Amino acid sequence: MRDALVAAAFRLFLERGYEQTTVDDIVTLAGVGRRSFFRYFPSKEDVVFPDHERCLADMTAFLAGGAEHEPVRRVCDAARLVLRMYAENPAFSVQRYRLTKRVPGLRAYELSVVWRYEHALAEYLRERFTGRPDGTLRADVIAAAVVAAHNNALRSWLRSDCEDDAGAAVDHALGYVQATYGHGVAPTAPEEQKKRPDGRPGPSARPDEVVVLVSRRDAPLWRVVQELESALGRG
Amino acid sequence: MRDALVAAAFRLFLERGYEQTTVDDIVTLAGVGRRSFFRYFPSKEDVVFPDHERCLADMTAFLAGGAEHEPVRRVCDAARLVLRMYAENPAFSVQRYRLTKRVPGLRAYELSVVWRYEHALAEYLRERFTGRPDGTLRADVIAAAVVAAHNNALRSWLRSDCEDDAGAAVDHALGYVQATYGHGVAPTAPEEQKKRPDGRPGPSARPDEVVVLVSRRDAPLWRVVQELESALGRG
Repeated sequence: MRDALVAAAFRLFLERGYEQTTVDDIVTLAGVGRRSFFRYFPSKEDVVFPDHERCLADMTAFLAGGAEHEPVRRVCDAARLVLRMYAENPAFSVQRYRLTKRVPGLRAYELSVVWRYEHALAEYLRERFTGRPDGTLRADVIAAAVVAAHNNALRSWLRSDCEDDAGAAVDHALGYVQATYGHGVAPTAPEEQKKRPDGRPGPSARPDEVVVLVSRRDAPLWRVVQELESALGRG
Repeated sequence: MRDALVAAAFRLFLERGYEQTTVDDIVTLAGVGRRSFFRYFPSKEDVVFPDHERCLADMTAFLAGGAEHEPVRRVCDAARLVLRMYAENPAFSVQRYRLTKRVPGLRAYELSVVWRYEHALAEYLRERFTGRPDGTLRADVIAAAVVAAHNNALRSWLRSDCEDDAGAAVDHALGYVQATYGHGVAPTAPEEQKKRPDGRPGPSARPDEVVVLVSRRDAPLWRVVQELESALGRG
């Protein structure tokens, strides 16, 4: 029933236009009553994005179970759940992408959905970065970077009519974010930074020491920074 | 007239609530006709955000004149225009912040405004990064990071009832983004990287060389990375 309503709605949106299609038109074509429509969808806009609520719930559950994982990697993996939802039905995703671009109201709806994903990622990171310097700032910036990278790759894929490899494009985009933030901001408890398990002061308690790093000039910068952080005891 | 309409609108929004106030109520209190209202504001929502169109125009003009500047610094400075708009009238900004939090329709409107700022920053960066590897990806991610950092500081300031120093908070937040992206992604033409003006190969054409960096262990990471980039000839 739910799928039949979505199919009927999109058929009419494409034939007549979104604005010109009423909920009555949709239920007539689907052969059901108005009440059935509103049981599944609070409004006509919601039928355009039938899977986001489920995906948001999946993302929230995924993040709730991720307290042990490296946090930036975890939010990147959470973003991949959104891609998977789009990739499950490429033809539908392309139709919706084109429709959303044409209808300002749907664009606004989509922005509010994107904000909810970003908010879920930011909340998870804020929790993980509790007590760290600039914890909420880092959380908000990294969540925004993850969403922007994911959406950059997603849009390229949708514009290519799903001919490119969506998974590879999103992996590449999220790899850029992970290379930027995936180290150094990983939360280590301040006590862990200051003390070793044996009670001797740890790396960051020895400010007077110098660190020497030797690198090949052609090494990628992220790789050098990774080594550097490791040498400084902040990895 | 425009200011009088905004003042009348906010007085009513605070007294009766946003949803319970009509455009007729606003023009009656301001002592003008409906036509005057709609000359300045396309809808009731627009009177809540009377300065964003001007600020967006200022930002676009500022970015259009910034082709010679370091791009990440330029978008950070562009974001400061938004802060300045909020800081010009702190009492009004706090009232609006509280109102927007309570009314979902205004929250959606605000998201669309934020998206337009982010889009303006991303378009500028895309132009500056044309032809660079991952140019659009970097542009989108950096624009999103700038907006997230700016808004993190802006919201803290609004929540403090404007008691904190807004400029210092935003400088700190944008400093985090600049330290992350302000070097290394600065577009240098590939030819410049490969050749010196005298035709001899430049730094990145000498992959077999090693670079030695010596750092105090307590130096801030961004400072070390800056030195590192300089040593690698990528600053």
